[in-house]
Amino acid sequence: MKPNNEDLRDQLRRFQSGDLDEEQILAKIQGYQDLGFAKLDHDRHRRCGFPEVVYAQGKEPADLVHIFEALTSHSDCVLATRAGAAHVEAVQERFPEARHDARARALWIDKRPAEESIGLIGLLAAGTSDLPVAEEARITAELMGAKVSCHYDVGVAGLHRLLDQYDQLRRARVLIVVAGMEGALPSVVGGLVDRPVLAVPTSVGYGAAFGGIAALLGMLNSCAPGVSVLSIDNGFGAGHLAALINRLGESDLES
Amino acid sequence: MKPNNEDLRDQLRRFQSGDLDEEQILAKIQGYQDLGFAKLDHDRHRRCGFPEVVYAQGKEPADLVHIFEALTSHSDCVLATRAGAAHVEAVQERFPEARHDARARALWIDKRPAEESIGLIGLLAAGTSDLPVAEEARITAELMGAKVSCHYDVGVAGLHRLLDQYDQLRRARVLIVVAGMEGALPSVVGGLVDRPVLAVPTSVGYGAAFGGIAALLGMLNSCAPGVSVLSIDNGFGAGHLAALINRLGESDLES
Amino acid sequence: MKPNNEDLRDQLRRFQSGDLDEEQILAKIQGYQDLGFAKLDHDRHRRCGFPEVVYAQGKEPADLVHIFEALTSHSDCVLATRAGAAHVEAVQERFPEARHDARARALWIDKRPAEESIGLIGLLAAGTSDLPVAEEARITAELMGAKVSCHYDVGVAGLHRLLDQYDQLRRARVLIVVAGMEGALPSVVGGLVDRPVLAVPTSVGYGAAFGGIAALLGMLNSCAPGVSVLSIDNGFGAGHLAALINRLGESDLES
Amino acid sequence: MKPNNEDLRDQLRRFQSGDLDEEQILAKIQGYQDLGFAKLDHDRHRRCGFPEVVYAQGKEPADLVHIFEALTSHSDCVLATRAGAAHVEAVQERFPEARHDARARALWIDKRPAEESIGLIGLLAAGTSDLPVAEEARITAELMGAKVSCHYDVGVAGLHRLLDQYDQLRRARVLIVVAGMEGALPSVVGGLVDRPVLAVPTSVGYGAAFGGIAALLGMLNSCAPGVSVLSIDNGFGAGHLAALINRLGESDLES
Amino acid sequence: MKPNNEDLRDQLRRFQSGDLDEEQILAKIQGYQDLGFAKLDHDRHRRCGFPEVVYAQGKEPADLVHIFEALTSHSDCVLATRAGAAHVEAVQERFPEARHDARARALWIDKRPAEESIGLIGLLAAGTSDLPVAEEARITAELMGAKVSCHYDVGVAGLHRLLDQYDQLRRARVLIVVAGMEGALPSVVGGLVDRPVLAVPTSVGYGAAFGGIAALLGMLNSCAPGVSVLSIDNGFGAGHLAALINRLGESDLES
Amino acid sequence: MKPNNEDLRDQLRRFQSGDLDEEQILAKIQGYQDLGFAKLDHDRHRRCGFPEVVYAQGKEPADLVHIFEALTSHSDCVLATRAGAAHVEAVQERFPEARHDARARALWIDKRPAEESIGLIGLLAAGTSDLPVAEEARITAELMGAKVSCHYDVGVAGLHRLLDQYDQLRRARVLIVVAGMEGALPSVVGGLVDRPVLAVPTSVGYGAAFGGIAALLGMLNSCAPGVSVLSIDNGFGAGHLAALINRLGESDLES
Amino acid sequence: MKPNNEDLRDQLRRFQSGDLDEEQILAKIQGYQDLGFAKLDHDRHRRCGFPEVVYAQGKEPADLVHIFEALTSHSDCVLATRAGAAHVEAVQERFPEARHDARARALWIDKRPAEESIGLIGLLAAGTSDLPVAEEARITAELMGAKVSCHYDVGVAGLHRLLDQYDQLRRARVLIVVAGMEGALPSVVGGLVDRPVLAVPTSVGYGAAFGGIAALLGMLNSCAPGVSVLSIDNGFGAGHLAALINRLGESDLES
Amino acid sequence: MKPNNEDLRDQLRRFQSGDLDEEQILAKIQGYQDLGFAKLDHDRHRRCGFPEVVYAQGKEPADLVHIFEALTSHSDCVLATRAGAAHVEAVQERFPEARHDARARALWIDKRPAEESIGLIGLLAAGTSDLPVAEEARITAELMGAKVSCHYDVGVAGLHRLLDQYDQLRRARVLIVVAGMEGALPSVVGGLVDRPVLAVPTSVGYGAAFGGIAALLGMLNSCAPGVSVLSIDNGFGAGHLAALINRLGESDLES
Repeated sequence: MKPNNEDLRDQLRRFQSGDLDEEQILAKIQGYQDLGFAKLDHDRHRRCGFPEVVYAQGKEPADLVHIFEALTSHSDCVLATRAGAAHVEAVQERFPEARHDARARALWIDKRPAEESIGLIGLLAAGTSDLPVAEEARITAELMGAKVSCHYDVGVAGLHRLLDQYDQLRRARVLIVVAGMEGALPSVVGGLVDRPVLAVPTSVGYGAAFGGIAALLGMLNSCAPGVSVLSIDNGFGAGHLAALINRLGESDLES
Repeated sequence: MKPNNEDLRDQLRRFQSGDLDEEQILAKIQGYQDLGFAKLDHDRHRRCGFPEVVYAQGKEPADLVHIFEALTSHSDCVLATRAGAAHVEAVQERFPEARHDARARALWIDKRPAEESIGLIGLLAAGTSDLPVAEEARITAELMGAKVSCHYDVGVAGLHRLLDQYDQLRRARVLIVVAGMEGALPSVVGGLVDRPVLAVPTSVGYGAAFGGIAALLGMLNSCAPGVSVLSIDNGFGAGHLAALINRLGESDLES
Repeated sequence: MKPNNEDLRDQLRRFQSGDLDEEQILAKIQGYQDLGFAKLDHDRHRRCGFPEVVYAQGKEPADLVHIFEALTSHSDCVLATRAGAAHVEAVQERFPEARHDARARALWIDKRPAEESIGLIGLLAAGTSDLPVAEEARITAELMGAKVSCHYDVGVAGLHRLLDQYDQLRRARVLIVVAGMEGALPSVVGGLVDRPVLAVPTSVGYGAAFGGIAALLGMLNSCAPGVSVLSIDNGFGAGHLAALINRLGESDLES
Repeated sequence: MKPNNEDLRDQLRRFQSGDLDEEQILAKIQGYQDLGFAKLDHDRHRRCGFPEVVYAQGKEPADLVHIFEALTSHSDCVLATRAGAAHVEAVQERFPEARHDARARALWIDKRPAEESIGLIGLLAAGTSDLPVAEEARITAELMGAKVSCHYDVGVAGLHRLLDQYDQLRRARVLIVVAGMEGALPSVVGGLVDRPVLAVPTSVGYGAAFGGIAALLGMLNSCAPGVSVLSIDNGFGAGHLAALINRLGESDLES
Repeated sequence: MKPNNEDLRDQLRRFQSGDLDEEQILAKIQGYQDLGFAKLDHDRHRRCGFPEVVYAQGKEPADLVHIFEALTSHSDCVLATRAGAAHVEAVQERFPEARHDARARALWIDKRPAEESIGLIGLLAAGTSDLPVAEEARITAELMGAKVSCHYDVGVAGLHRLLDQYDQLRRARVLIVVAGMEGALPSVVGGLVDRPVLAVPTSVGYGAAFGGIAALLGMLNSCAPGVSVLSIDNGFGAGHLAALINRLGESDLES
Repeated sequence: MKPNNEDLRDQLRRFQSGDLDEEQILAKIQGYQDLGFAKLDHDRHRRCGFPEVVYAQGKEPADLVHIFEALTSHSDCVLATRAGAAHVEAVQERFPEARHDARARALWIDKRPAEESIGLIGLLAAGTSDLPVAEEARITAELMGAKVSCHYDVGVAGLHRLLDQYDQLRRARVLIVVAGMEGALPSVVGGLVDRPVLAVPTSVGYGAAFGGIAALLGMLNSCAPGVSVLSIDNGFGAGHLAALINRLGESDLES
Repeated sequence: MKPNNEDLRDQLRRFQSGDLDEEQILAKIQGYQDLGFAKLDHDRHRRCGFPEVVYAQGKEPADLVHIFEALTSHSDCVLATRAGAAHVEAVQERFPEARHDARARALWIDKRPAEESIGLIGLLAAGTSDLPVAEEARITAELMGAKVSCHYDVGVAGLHRLLDQYDQLRRARVLIVVAGMEGALPSVVGGLVDRPVLAVPTSVGYGAAFGGIAALLGMLNSCAPGVSVLSIDNGFGAGHLAALINRLGESDLES
Repeated sequence: MKPNNEDLRDQLRRFQSGDLDEEQILAKIQGYQDLGFAKLDHDRHRRCGFPEVVYAQGKEPADLVHIFEALTSHSDCVLATRAGAAHVEAVQERFPEARHDARARALWIDKRPAEESIGLIGLLAAGTSDLPVAEEARITAELMGAKVSCHYDVGVAGLHRLLDQYDQLRRARVLIVVAGMEGALPSVVGGLVDRPVLAVPTSVGYGAAFGGIAALLGMLNSCAPGVSVLSIDNGFGAGHLAALINRLGESDLES
């Protein structure tokens, strides 16, 4: 699972030339950097298609800054999800270039040169309360290079709002469908398209919605083919997976 | 809760004239007949709009015949649900006029003069596996005098099948929507009509459908207004309730 | 599902005469108004019998005001449920005519001329803690034109309190029964009347009540016929559905 | 926890006189008899008020006979619950005096001289399907010396059937209430009497009854005071406990 | 269910003599007093052996004072459970004679002449965290006239602490056993005594205790006979039921 | 959602030329064929990328033959899942060309000319008991034109078996990972590749596996990115979705 | 994770000498043998302390024989759990030396020279119905070289049966405690000893035992320290783990 | 279960010499000290290998100080878990020698002379959020005399981080594996070692992790042998049990 010889040779030359310091070359060879309380997986991008993403919630702001420092030394793009106000403040003080989206609770640094986004991901949300999860998916997918078109508040109780988007939906390579309550939207969408549908249940709903379990079960039991399911409120996971699928549509795909 | 004076006076005269025997007049006065192991609620029709219905499953065929004998002596219409082959055979031997529907597992005797059915109940089933439950609902509602129009196999994965029924659905006074798996159909129907929608989850589905729980939760959390929910596979309950609602649309309603 | 030709012709003439502006006529034609983060379903009243209702909880007060502005431009009656103090303050500052009920957490604007309420909905609550849910049902049903009679604190542990209401209960076209804890009240009521019973479990209770699950299961498994169930604490849904059923009793019903 | 000195002295004299053999006196001293695969608790009667009862289900008929042999050598009364046809046949071949009740699935030997039963236990069952559980409770309580009065099929959907028993219910020292489906009967009974109510949920019901969970939760959350709950279908436990409580009402109670 | 003729005759004479005012005599005849938002069950003592008890949690302090005023006008003893600091302050300002126990969260007024307590209830708690529930049971039972002996912190992990109480436990007429975590204590106690054991699971425990579900299931499945179960944290219910059972041991019991 | 004009024009010409009969042209126009008890979705292939697949379990063999007749008249490829021996016998008698795989319980007719399969799907199964589900996935994907490479019995308890497949896994466009018990395999695989991972929990396992719930929850909570989840035992769904994703890698993709 | 150089060198010499054939030496080098549908983990013994154990349930008898052939060619000891009559017959026909225990459903071949068993495992079962699980644990542990002392039917409802074993329990290096119903026994045992307690919940019990969940939760929440939990009915796992722990007590332990 | 004669004789002599006061000698004889609201189990160390540990959460700081006073009078080592800031402050004011670890929420006094730690416990944590639970385990085990080596942030999504620790893991006598989310780490570790693996699920994770249930189920169903499970977040229990097992490896073990 470790980097192959060409990669290593390249890193060793950068170390020789002073481009990497000792700690950095060690992390490259091991595939991770040991901070004591954490082992940062610097090899994640090579193996899984995107650098390790930080789940900020529950972390001390100072620890988050420390992790950002370690990650930015190995990668041009760092993303943290579920970032609160204190996280944002601490990171932006140290990295003024860090960007933030309050609704999606996302915080990121992107020092890569701008490139044109590729393909098309269709992103649907059933209701306005599902937007934080949908936006987390959007930002993740866009950082991974995908073009995303958003269709919000198209729940099945007003079917005409969805059917008006029919032609656009069929143009996407992959669709993300975010819904709470009974989670019926992915089933309806799955019956309209021949592309993969990634369903994301949200904890939106009251009474017997049980924090997203109703939507989760609904999506797992979808009567439409072509639907698979992410965990409750896992917008990041959906955006990441959709971007991987979206890349498959590129004609220069090496596999 | 007991019969009022006029009713009682009428029964007493029928007893005096020999139309009722002693056991029958006693049951009328008490409101139930004590068979030792059961207390048949002969007053149910007056109170709740339909005679007591027998749940056959788990009952000895001989006991069922015994109960049919007691009920037919007080009522012109007797219905048993979940009747198996042995039940049907035993009851039809004693009551050759008893009718039976195998798919709905319903068994009944109806000696009332034919009357024109009233109103309109729209009855939808998402898939073909949901038909036993839907047919139990249909027979119950028809025995209670309702006209029923059936729309089967109109699940949301092929939305055009449902939308083709749009005009007919809007003509019904009340709708019964039967569905298993993710149970999304009632939400879609609820968004199309301004009449009550009675949702019936079925135990159809596999894997994470959990014997109907997924559909039940989906229906309870419907994002469409106007939807209420029956228990899993409870076709009888849906048919009974729909018939009560359907009667409200009659212009000569006394209340 | 879109408005029929007569409706459209009528709207177009109102546009021509300046009664509707361009955004409004567009929303009429599409059946919804696109606010970017939301697609307001202005066609809901025509399809489902009442305008779209706003679930305020979790919405920013400013967003709620924005939604009220959009909805009041298309409808004379707007209702928000689960409105907190901040919602009320923000909306009433912009719309001084907005009314509010603290116990029911309901907030609404009603500019329609007063009309006599129709029919009769019987509304029962088992205990005093169930009142917020019951009152949400009452306000919803009254805004939809129904007459409502309330019978509060009639739980089954003191049966004489319920039986004293017997004659009044039988006069209602439809009954809403709100109960927490073991949720036994709908079963008892269902055995006393021949009208639909809409059961609403509440999250009231402690220990093994599990936030309303005990009451929900109790109601789904009611041994009485004629009972269907709403989601936990869903007073709005019960009021809305009861009002639809109550309308069926009007002699001039078109269907 | 072992027998006190007087008891032991008495046993030792019976051993001396040949009334007990060596194995029997050992079991008395230890408080149990070791059969290798089982340790029969011969001291149970002294400690808990009734000899150890055998749960037959899942046991080999030959093992059951073996256990009956060991128990009858120490006790004049032996009871097995959940006994199937094979159990009955095997035990009755060895002990022709063994008695059996098919509906209650109970099998017992009682060689004690007849005594008048004491006190009064009121035993209610909501529906006819609850009778096997109720009858298991009745036989257990009667073997423990209690008088039992049965009130079957008095479920809350036909309240007049229950209220007709009102005076008799108030005469009991303790009540057992057996019910499936929503399990509402104990709450109603608990509101009518000032005696302990032992609620037994049954696995009767379909769909969302979940094998008795709905009834169990309903009973645990009863809004009436004075109700406690046994496990699902545990008629034996209810009969045993009711008999212990019933004994407290005897004027010669020693405590 | 209403008061019998003698009782009524007596009340009417008290009304005639001015001992009762009009509202009071009405409540006696109806069996409850209608406060609008509540129907106080003044007949509860006659029917169920103790006046209606108030669940304070979630009630406005002013409402609680109002209820205390209504109840004290019909009864010499009033009890509220789950009373917080604000409840206590409000009630004690209006009723300086009201007493309060902080750990048990109980608040009560008792104007009855002192009487000797009767019988004996053994009250066990497995751990120190179970004391609030145990103390709620103790106060309830004592207000209902029972003598209570407490055995706290006798959980099964240190069995010698329990076995030291063996002789005292066997002297009680009925035992209450309060336990959280795995709830094993009632099984052990049930195997030591021939008196009823009322098991109360508490929400004490962490991780997989699931707020008392583990203890609840443990108690329901007790391998010892003579055990029945109350709801999670329901100390009041246990105290009430134990006091009813304890009364059965009085030689002058009328039944 | 209905076929576009070109498609329709083409069908009409085939009708004119006698290539389609009246029932067939009607089904093309409506998008489904109404068999009374079922509405076959002949438009599914155009919309969703593969013809409607039949779930055989629970269907009468004769009904299945009837459905095969209707489907083969519109499509060259028909697939039924969960087919038992009786289904196979009935269908093969009518269609001798039908093929069958016993372990996967799949039954199909494929009259299309042979084409080279495309891309690469990596299919992993954790244990030998997971093979029926894995094989259902394989057959589905192959019928949809995909090349599949199988890696069976590579569960995480013997990690070297999995790591030996490392290079092959990274060559696939998409991976299906089938596992029961704790369902850990998708997490490990997800950390090794940069392609989509479709996780399928199976009902394999005993004790606390709860029919696949443990594996399902494990997969939903995977700590590795790029994983989405199908329903328990849903091999068909995984094969279908993987084939849709696999097609995206074709350079001539039109979108 | 692969075998170290010394081990390999040794295997290669055995191959050279003809002691191993080509397939065997390959399996040694790879650490597993690929049967197509299975990859037998021949390296398991070296890594985990015992050869791979076969779960027979659900396997074809012929497949089981095939697996036994492969395993016996690499190991002197092969064990299958959950073996039914057909498995036993097929394996014993091919391997007459195979031994079988019907109650434990275990089937094994042991060609190792007899050695004295080491240490001491105390094995307790609460009731006679728990014996199949306990015996599976016993046979597993004994095959792994441990001495086991059995204490069956020592449930907490008759505590004297357990306390009589006190001195013997304290002599064991590790204890296995098997119990169903409420699963209280491990807590009591855990409070008596200073050695590890491995708790095994069984699916024994009825009503609310929920197939072992009650016992599982009880054991997880044990108030006694030193207790850890296996899956429901997992006697094999307990025996395996206990044997590993028991080995730690040997003075010649290398670690 | 009480201390043996030698122990008692020794204590009595210390009492005679004034080394113990009257309350202390009483506690030694009884095996516990009765504080009224608690019965401190001073015999726990002798029976279970470590003195009683205090669960601080929910206790009043003053009560905790009181308990520390009582425990330190009988033991040189006292440990409290889940201690908050107020607990720490109160205890350290009275016992300045008390030590505290904020992340592990542990608070302890250790007056024993320093001894070399024995054996080796391998302690793994899957992610950084699992550290509080892991550290609670570490401190507990170290106070019980064990040497502990920590391997943090070695979750299965980056397998190379774990495999790098392979040689060290195999040197431990027993392993503790702490993980949240899907809890896959113990299965992977269990397949790599021949020593006991104690799995501790944590409540870390979001969405469908359900507060640790997903990890708990995953660990219970581990496909690797040699794994047993502690309750969610129960670091203390794992540390305690691991230390007991670790002691078994000492050559001077007496058993």
